[in-house]
Amino acid sequence: MKKQLHFDKVEFATRLSAVKREMSNRGLDVLLVVEPANQNYLTGYSAYSFYTPQMVIVCLDRDEPMWVGRFMDRVSATMTTYLAETNIRAYPDQYVASATLSAFDFMADVVKEVAGEKPTIGVEFGGFYYSARAHADLVKALPNAKIVDADLIINWIRIVKSPAEVAIMRQAGGIADAMMCRAIQVIEPGVRECDIAAAVYHQQISGTSEFGGSYASTPPFLCIGPRQVAPHADWTDDPLPPSTIVNLELFANRYRYQVNLARTVSVGKPTAEYEKLSEIVVEALNTGLETARPGATAEEVSTAFSRKLAKYGIEKEARVGYPIGVGFPPSMQDRTASLRRGDTTVLKPGMCFHMMSGLWLKDTGITITQSFVVTEQGHEPLTEIPRKLFVK
Amino acid sequence: MKKQLHFDKVEFATRLSAVKREMSNRGLDVLLVVEPANQNYLTGYSAYSFYTPQMVIVCLDRDEPMWVGRFMDRVSATMTTYLAETNIRAYPDQYVASATLSAFDFMADVVKEVAGEKPTIGVEFGGFYYSARAHADLVKALPNAKIVDADLIINWIRIVKSPAEVAIMRQAGGIADAMMCRAIQVIEPGVRECDIAAAVYHQQISGTSEFGGSYASTPPFLCIGPRQVAPHADWTDDPLPPSTIVNLELFANRYRYQVNLARTVSVGKPTAEYEKLSEIVVEALNTGLETARPGATAEEVSTAFSRKLAKYGIEKEARVGYPIGVGFPPSMQDRTASLRRGDTTVLKPGMCFHMMSGLWLKDTGITITQSFVVTEQGHEPLTEIPRKLFVK
Repeated sequence: MKKQLHFDKVEFATRLSAVKREMSNRGLDVLLVVEPANQNYLTGYSAYSFYTPQMVIVCLDRDEPMWVGRFMDRVSATMTTYLAETNIRAYPDQYVASATLSAFDFMADVVKEVAGEKPTIGVEFGGFYYSARAHADLVKALPNAKIVDADLIINWIRIVKSPAEVAIMRQAGGIADAMMCRAIQVIEPGVRECDIAAAVYHQQISGTSEFGGSYASTPPFLCIGPRQVAPHADWTDDPLPPSTIVNLELFANRYRYQVNLARTVSVGKPTAEYEKLSEIVVEALNTGLETARPGATAEEVSTAFSRKLAKYGIEKEARVGYPIGVGFPPSMQDRTASLRRGDTTVLKPGMCFHMMSGLWLKDTGITITQSFVVTEQGHEPLTEIPRKLFVK
Repeated sequence: MKKQLHFDKVEFATRLSAVKREMSNRGLDVLLVVEPANQNYLTGYSAYSFYTPQMVIVCLDRDEPMWVGRFMDRVSATMTTYLAETNIRAYPDQYVASATLSAFDFMADVVKEVAGEKPTIGVEFGGFYYSARAHADLVKALPNAKIVDADLIINWIRIVKSPAEVAIMRQAGGIADAMMCRAIQVIEPGVRECDIAAAVYHQQISGTSEFGGSYASTPPFLCIGPRQVAPHADWTDDPLPPSTIVNLELFANRYRYQVNLARTVSVGKPTAEYEKLSEIVVEALNTGLETARPGATAEEVSTAFSRKLAKYGIEKEARVGYPIGVGFPPSMQDRTASLRRGDTTVLKPGMCFHMMSGLWLKDTGITITQSFVVTEQGHEPLTEIPRKLFVK
């Protein structure tokens, strides 16, 4: 069967070495990787199968990780990972949604096979899909192992992207631009909100003429009229009125790498006050971006942004940005660095962030943002669409 | 602010009463609802915000549940739930993705405020997004409470849909039909796989001229050529060859209610053997559907299907179906009944299932399925597209 790998074996080996180094530092014999994004990063695995128990097992003394999942997803593991067939294990369907069986018993048997009865095992305790139940089942099935929290080990490694990853992020950025242009094109009074969302999705998946897109970790957000202050609201079937505000936060995805992009479109002429607000946001956004360079801290970028806003008497409660990269639902949130006060993470070349300069004030919302990669000298924007308020 | 409620208050009250009855049976003072689908069912809450800690608190002795989530999603709680403002609580942004703070401390304080220090608390231990870390944080923050597993209480209640819910399921079914028709329309040699997926998404969100659609719990699956045996594979950018098999599993969503629909399209004339396989699958599917009526068990439906298949020497490893209804990513999987051997769940009017009659054999895959609602007499299909192999 033809392999669908988007990185060469050297790149996967480099990633694995970095993870093993950290395992060794922490005295872990085994790392159980439960986050889909981390499974993808380490092995290439990509399929929408993580809603049933699935993990990647890294043993310090074994060359390759192992993938363990549901029997019907075994073919996807063969196709999308570099792993040997012997390192792909699958449990029968009777384990799925069972009141009496736990897939973690099956997985624990694989762990015992490769690491014995008494290993020290790190697990991503905070990982999406590693439920309290899953944890209880695993602990019960491995009574002699030492199980410790090893959350975010891989997230902190993959926060710095390789040149090959940045190249894919740039493609995702190109799709994000195409999505936003399409949205701005179709927005006009009388068009149903759902039809704008439909056009955005179409562009997201169709991508460009050179390369297609994929599902993102998040649906697009179209927060319109009264919902301009509700950043994660659903769109409706209502037609756009002659005059309103449309906040669009869009997510492009290429080979699971995601780039976020938000813009505001004013339908009809905006008020002078709103126009002024858009200029303030862009000024603060640009000021923040100018500070983004190797050696600067996450806090410094945030502070540069916030100080500029404060000059105009505006305060943003939410953090000003977060890392972007491999994205699976429900969120590509890395749970590592945040561009906010108190975060001393030092920026390095290859780190990618979404500068989330959106404001949700009392009755007004505006979202003009920028995703970027940290370069040797400063930063490179991952999207090209102008930073401004669009008017239709 | 205008409320966006899709059910009347009597319906929400009925749902809450059923939940409280079960809480009372189990001796629970408090139920902490962590599954987004269950939060939606009980309060109406809908926004894509469940990737940060969020819960609905039901107290046996309080009239209304409470919603607790991130500060910026408070507006969505006001707009989409029937709850009084005093029953909507939000934690500040500093709790998000923090290495030092846990939102479960904030939530525990709300629990103590309404239920005191020593309640017996049920939590959905197996719920998506209730991680091992979340559980540890909650237990630590409520040292004097008794915390027990109360998984699936609400799932087992909402498995039976009200007439108002079935009406929405029918709308979702209409969108599913439109999606499949659009897919069949655009499939032809030379079209990129991603462009077929894009057209499907467009129809899903645009819906029909009467009502729009929403994001589903799952991306559409387009499993083409060699990937016809990989049910959850990603689509590619490759153009369709002159002759191939396209397995489509599509998900329509209306007001968070989801209907699943799969069909296979043969590009070019199928082999006689494949055509025969399609007839066998449809025959087995129809046989299974004929047994679906109030009083029959989940196992009986599964057995009717499997016996028919066995007549032709074919065995399906995976379960033959599962309940459908409210859907949020990563899956609308209810984790309750399964149409499979050993499941003694008795079918009741209002239950909705996706009869997942797809087959993934050694080198061949075929997916012709049917979603339905159990009626007083038997069943009503939720989609209308013919059960057959389509040829383009």
